[in-house]
Amino acid sequence: MGKYVITVSREYGSGGRLIGKRLADELGIGFYDGELLSLVAKESGYTEEFVRRNDQKKTQSLLYHLYIGSQILPASDMIFIAQSRVIKDLYNKESCVIVGRCADYVLRGFDNVSNVFVTAPIESRIARVRDEYGEQADNYRAYLTKKDKNRIAYYNYFADDAWGKVQNYDISVNSDIGIDKAADLIAQYIREKYSL
Amino acid sequence: MGKYVITVSREYGSGGRLIGKRLADELGIGFYDGELLSLVAKESGYTEEFVRRNDQKKTQSLLYHLYIGSQILPASDMIFIAQSRVIKDLYNKESCVIVGRCADYVLRGFDNVSNVFVTAPIESRIARVRDEYGEQADNYRAYLTKKDKNRIAYYNYFADDAWGKVQNYDISVNSDIGIDKAADLIAQYIREKYSL
Repeated sequence: MGKYVITVSREYGSGGRLIGKRLADELGIGFYDGELLSLVAKESGYTEEFVRRNDQKKTQSLLYHLYIGSQILPASDMIFIAQSRVIKDLYNKESCVIVGRCADYVLRGFDNVSNVFVTAPIESRIARVRDEYGEQADNYRAYLTKKDKNRIAYYNYFADDAWGKVQNYDISVNSDIGIDKAADLIAQYIREKYSL
Repeated sequence: MGKYVITVSREYGSGGRLIGKRLADELGIGFYDGELLSLVAKESGYTEEFVRRNDQKKTQSLLYHLYIGSQILPASDMIFIAQSRVIKDLYNKESCVIVGRCADYVLRGFDNVSNVFVTAPIESRIARVRDEYGEQADNYRAYLTKKDKNRIAYYNYFADDAWGKVQNYDISVNSDIGIDKAADLIAQYIREKYSL
């Protein structure tokens, strides 16, 4: 078996990032998420702080850009383009797990790409965000709904496809069975698929 | 562990029914799909042939019913209601796998219900429908698109929710890894979840 890439999409607070990390460790391949940003920053010539500030923001409306008469692409678009280039470079370079960043869309139609989605019930996501991530909110349900909406808007804008269509994923798992167990199941799927 | 129910939703030609059957066998629990129709037929007082003819048809528009001045619910609505009753009876009676029939929606919010979705790439679905089911079509891609559309319309009408939202399923699997292997993975998920 040659190189393969696993993309992980997830609901906020589902533990999808942890599962992606664990999966990469189990399979002995690279893992890219926050680290990706540094690569992108280098690639695009932006500083890491600038990328962090503009990352995962949906672009302002076209009308806004016409209004301000901008001749160049907005920062978030340029970052998305640079990220897509980094993702394709990774694809060509090594086997790895890539979390988020519409990587499933960026690599659509490429060989040996498996798309994973991690879900979790809202109650579990609230508990994780509050107790494990230590995030503060007056109303956690509203907080998560807003996080979800941002993620969906980002995906729908850049990927030009609906977020969370089950047909777009090779396997999806509800993380309530446990981070390690979910990662094990996905690893097993990958091993079966590629006869590893 | 007491009783539990697994619902299986699937894309047409994905082999989801076979996976459901295999899953039920592995777990040693009941399996309901076509058999459900006979139960429903008895339940509703319709003949089995009448049910078969009207099953999985979306109801005609309200306008149509106003036009023909019907005072009673259309046949497909009555069959759906009777099916929902049968599904709830099964839930109360025994552990089982139920394929299709919006069972995931009918049992939403009930304890110990796991929702499974089986996907497959269009090429694999065409091959299965043509070579294994022996179905005839001039254009298999168009044929499957129409089958999908009917399934989606049926779900969206009766379940009042979008079909195929990844968040609605506990686990989804692309059946290209093989019917038996997909069933094994799902069985494993169920065993982990309920500590069987």
